[in-house]
Amino acid sequence: MIETETTKDAVYLRCLEERQHHSFVLEQSAEAVVKALGFKVAFEKDLDALKTHLDNLGVENTWVKRYAQGRTLQAKTPQGMILEFYFAMDKAERLLQKYANYHGCAPQRFDHINCFTHNVQDTYEFFVRDLGFRLTEYTATEQEEIWACWMHRKGGVHDMALTNGKGPRLHHLAVWVPNALDIIHLCDLMATTGYVENIERGPGRHGISNAFFLYVLDPDGHRIEIYTSDYLTVDTDFEPIRWDLLDPQRQTLWGAPAPLSWFEHGSVFEGIAVNEPVLEAKPIVAP
Amino acid sequence: MIETETTKDAVYLRCLEERQHHSFVLEQSAEAVVKALGFKVAFEKDLDALKTHLDNLGVENTWVKRYAQGRTLQAKTPQGMILEFYFAMDKAERLLQKYANYHGCAPQRFDHINCFTHNVQDTYEFFVRDLGFRLTEYTATEQEEIWACWMHRKGGVHDMALTNGKGPRLHHLAVWVPNALDIIHLCDLMATTGYVENIERGPGRHGISNAFFLYVLDPDGHRIEIYTSDYLTVDTDFEPIRWDLLDPQRQTLWGAPAPLSWFEHGSVFEGIAVNEPVLEAKPIVAP
Amino acid sequence: MIETETTKDAVYLRCLEERQHHSFVLEQSAEAVVKALGFKVAFEKDLDALKTHLDNLGVENTWVKRYAQGRTLQAKTPQGMILEFYFAMDKAERLLQKYANYHGCAPQRFDHINCFTHNVQDTYEFFVRDLGFRLTEYTATEQEEIWACWMHRKGGVHDMALTNGKGPRLHHLAVWVPNALDIIHLCDLMATTGYVENIERGPGRHGISNAFFLYVLDPDGHRIEIYTSDYLTVDTDFEPIRWDLLDPQRQTLWGAPAPLSWFEHGSVFEGIAVNEPVLEAKPIVAP
Amino acid sequence: MIETETTKDAVYLRCLEERQHHSFVLEQSAEAVVKALGFKVAFEKDLDALKTHLDNLGVENTWVKRYAQGRTLQAKTPQGMILEFYFAMDKAERLLQKYANYHGCAPQRFDHINCFTHNVQDTYEFFVRDLGFRLTEYTATEQEEIWACWMHRKGGVHDMALTNGKGPRLHHLAVWVPNALDIIHLCDLMATTGYVENIERGPGRHGISNAFFLYVLDPDGHRIEIYTSDYLTVDTDFEPIRWDLLDPQRQTLWGAPAPLSWFEHGSVFEGIAVNEPVLEAKPIVAP
Repeated sequence: MIETETTKDAVYLRCLEERQHHSFVLEQSAEAVVKALGFKVAFEKDLDALKTHLDNLGVENTWVKRYAQGRTLQAKTPQGMILEFYFAMDKAERLLQKYANYHGCAPQRFDHINCFTHNVQDTYEFFVRDLGFRLTEYTATEQEEIWACWMHRKGGVHDMALTNGKGPRLHHLAVWVPNALDIIHLCDLMATTGYVENIERGPGRHGISNAFFLYVLDPDGHRIEIYTSDYLTVDTDFEPIRWDLLDPQRQTLWGAPAPLSWFEHGSVFEGIAVNEPVLEAKPIVAP
Repeated sequence: MIETETTKDAVYLRCLEERQHHSFVLEQSAEAVVKALGFKVAFEKDLDALKTHLDNLGVENTWVKRYAQGRTLQAKTPQGMILEFYFAMDKAERLLQKYANYHGCAPQRFDHINCFTHNVQDTYEFFVRDLGFRLTEYTATEQEEIWACWMHRKGGVHDMALTNGKGPRLHHLAVWVPNALDIIHLCDLMATTGYVENIERGPGRHGISNAFFLYVLDPDGHRIEIYTSDYLTVDTDFEPIRWDLLDPQRQTLWGAPAPLSWFEHGSVFEGIAVNEPVLEAKPIVAP
Repeated sequence: MIETETTKDAVYLRCLEERQHHSFVLEQSAEAVVKALGFKVAFEKDLDALKTHLDNLGVENTWVKRYAQGRTLQAKTPQGMILEFYFAMDKAERLLQKYANYHGCAPQRFDHINCFTHNVQDTYEFFVRDLGFRLTEYTATEQEEIWACWMHRKGGVHDMALTNGKGPRLHHLAVWVPNALDIIHLCDLMATTGYVENIERGPGRHGISNAFFLYVLDPDGHRIEIYTSDYLTVDTDFEPIRWDLLDPQRQTLWGAPAPLSWFEHGSVFEGIAVNEPVLEAKPIVAP
Repeated sequence: MIETETTKDAVYLRCLEERQHHSFVLEQSAEAVVKALGFKVAFEKDLDALKTHLDNLGVENTWVKRYAQGRTLQAKTPQGMILEFYFAMDKAERLLQKYANYHGCAPQRFDHINCFTHNVQDTYEFFVRDLGFRLTEYTATEQEEIWACWMHRKGGVHDMALTNGKGPRLHHLAVWVPNALDIIHLCDLMATTGYVENIERGPGRHGISNAFFLYVLDPDGHRIEIYTSDYLTVDTDFEPIRWDLLDPQRQTLWGAPAPLSWFEHGSVFEGIAVNEPVLEAKPIVAP
């Protein structure tokens, strides 16, 4: 990733095609926690409309100040996630065509967020009904309970995904790379520079999203997905794709199961209690 | 490409991730011409709003019937292009994850259209002001006249591009593939199955759009681009990128010039007269 | 693979760059067994020299007739493997540049054989001392006992590898492909055409050989490796590379362990008894 | 490339899989010339046998001292090329699996040399008859005169190729990379770091050798090929492949002609006169 700026207590990072100041902020902290998940709105006035809507819903929210960005509205969702919305951010140079900056897997852009939530159905409804996300794929139990879901705004498979589990917790953040070989190179690089233990899962192909993926843990234990090969979802009549919870190919098209840690480990939000999931359906894990 | 259906006088084709009946229609005809360029609108009611807007503008338009699709509004732009707008189309199976259907360069989706127009400025204004397209990149002369432009609706670099030249004519249609190696395989395949003469330009990297490209001519002489590696443009505050007409890297980042045919050859619209360009700026071509 | 010829009871296959009649023969049989492993010698007269050498050693051998190939010497190694040596074979067209024949992972050439043997040290010595193979890499226990070894004639990492285990048995045959993406495509293809259960291990990177690999089981249960990314070993002063049996990265550079089946499952030679390994060292397997 | 060592007036370079001290030496010099082309022999005693053979032939030769390597025999071929032969060289660490050293196109090994010679037939005969090279592919005129040839020792398409032209001159040196995408990345990198003018030809696919290639000029004007995708030639009954001089696909399978500079520009050997070619056949060049 590109280091846009480093201040006394934070590092601001962006990816190669990004023209805004940062898409990741790492702050020095006693504990490895998530402070907030950020979303850019389409227009400045959307922030005010959102505040009114959240106030009407009784959803806790407040204006906060954030370095290098404009007005920022922080909200705590009914299930406890901390989200932040902004429109304006300082600009940075696009490095997409400054190829000397390509290193490692050369992440091209921030792609999506995946969170554990203890109540997928309610969280899903909040994102779709109140924030305007659209469903693309989902996993359901045999009783048609939603166990996990993928929702988008930008026209890909997802900007936000939800997984059943102790929550709210961050499951992973994902960056998009143009090529599966970039991911293979990252495996080689991590494996020979002292980070072999940080490779958690993959590389492989997800059934859901069709993504070629790799999951790694950063030195703080936050999970990062390196991600490519999804598809467009811009059609307004796009019909969401249902996957059965018992179908192992939804996880990995090629059949290999995810490790247990992938279903259990996540990053907590700072100061937010974690709840047991209301849905008891178990994921499919290898023996 | 996938053959969805073949009728007595037409072949309906789609790409691997597409879930609608067709994105290309080939009709038997005495001459190799373009009948219309199609666009899907977001909602059914947009068709009526568009009709009203075009009527108000005095832009010629009419409802037409099209196989396997709903209400379709045909319009002739002020510069003479024939466009068709629809919302509903019959559904077809998505073959993205039926990998036995991957052949050749395995086109994943229709990506964009590029047309010659004799008046880039006016055509550009019609697309942006009246149809709601957004500018992403453009080529300008030293006098800041727009010589070519790239405009989008779906969040990529372009759905529609315009090039200065005798027009209106179709310059090319483009399909998106996930990987540069798919394009290299297509070169190998065409070169060894009797189509080596149909490889017109590339493979290479465009400066504009950053796309890795190949241009081929189909047996009727219509130009097809095989295209990958562009970037997202969903931010509403995206600032269009200007390229100087004299910068050869806008065409090919690696420096190789396009052949003369690439600036001269195009497909006419059926029954539409072709006009000399109002802007005399010449492209940069190798000696 | 390319089907050169099919007779009443056998199918003869070759890979894309191969100019001889076959590199694989599948014969109809009541049981899924290995009949013989074939090696091409450099010159016709080497067959006679080899016969004399084997006779002197007291190694069982005999001339056999094989379809589409010249004089063939069959030998049973002291550890019970059935090997066949030939020089001449009928020619077939090289399809390397007939790209219309590229399907699936497009195997370009047969690469190597890997066998279980109950006595790695003795088998290794037979291949190196009596057949002229050269050691490239090997796994040793802490007591410096050879647990597995890789040996070559053609200048790559191996034509023949040996693994400690119940033997003699064939562990796998390997075909070489030019690109890791060919292997990924094969995973996608198998996973969506009913062969997901036949993907046994990978894709991944071996520490030993540096190969990017995939192991699949054919419908008879014979294991096939799809293999790329090794290196040249033509220097006569090449120093073999030692790997510690306790180093998990020798198996998979990225850390993921091989499944238990990979250490246990193999194909027996027709009519040859299988022996317990003399070396008790256990491989490293995941819990 | 990896910088093994830099002395007062020379830089010693090797590629990622190479375990010897250097495969390229750059010496400071007033003029950009070639001092010698080096070859490693299989055994130390081969040097003495070679000296005797060259003395018998009346080919000028002498022992020379070279940094970091053992006894070295320098010879001037009948057509004026300066060759050097050695067996022993200091060892260096193999970096194939130290992926942090992968930069740019990550050249994995030195692959081959290509020289202009004014007399292809005689030079070809010297290499095959006196040095033991084997022919793999060749270009012939309609009168069956050899116009260019590819010869190997290590089991690939070539270690040494000869092209008709003013000679002796070095046409290019080639490094092997595992993947076409490494070559595409190098194009992107050179195009955006001030070296766009140094990209001379490609990327493309050669008909001859099937290689995916790129030709660049280093800052001294020496031509370097980046090369992948050839095939094995270890069979002793390998039949050389003939290409017609009039077949444009021998140069580029995809049809694009090489630029004129590619037929004209080369590097002279220090102090060696350049002769006009005896064969007048002209290459095929675009109009």
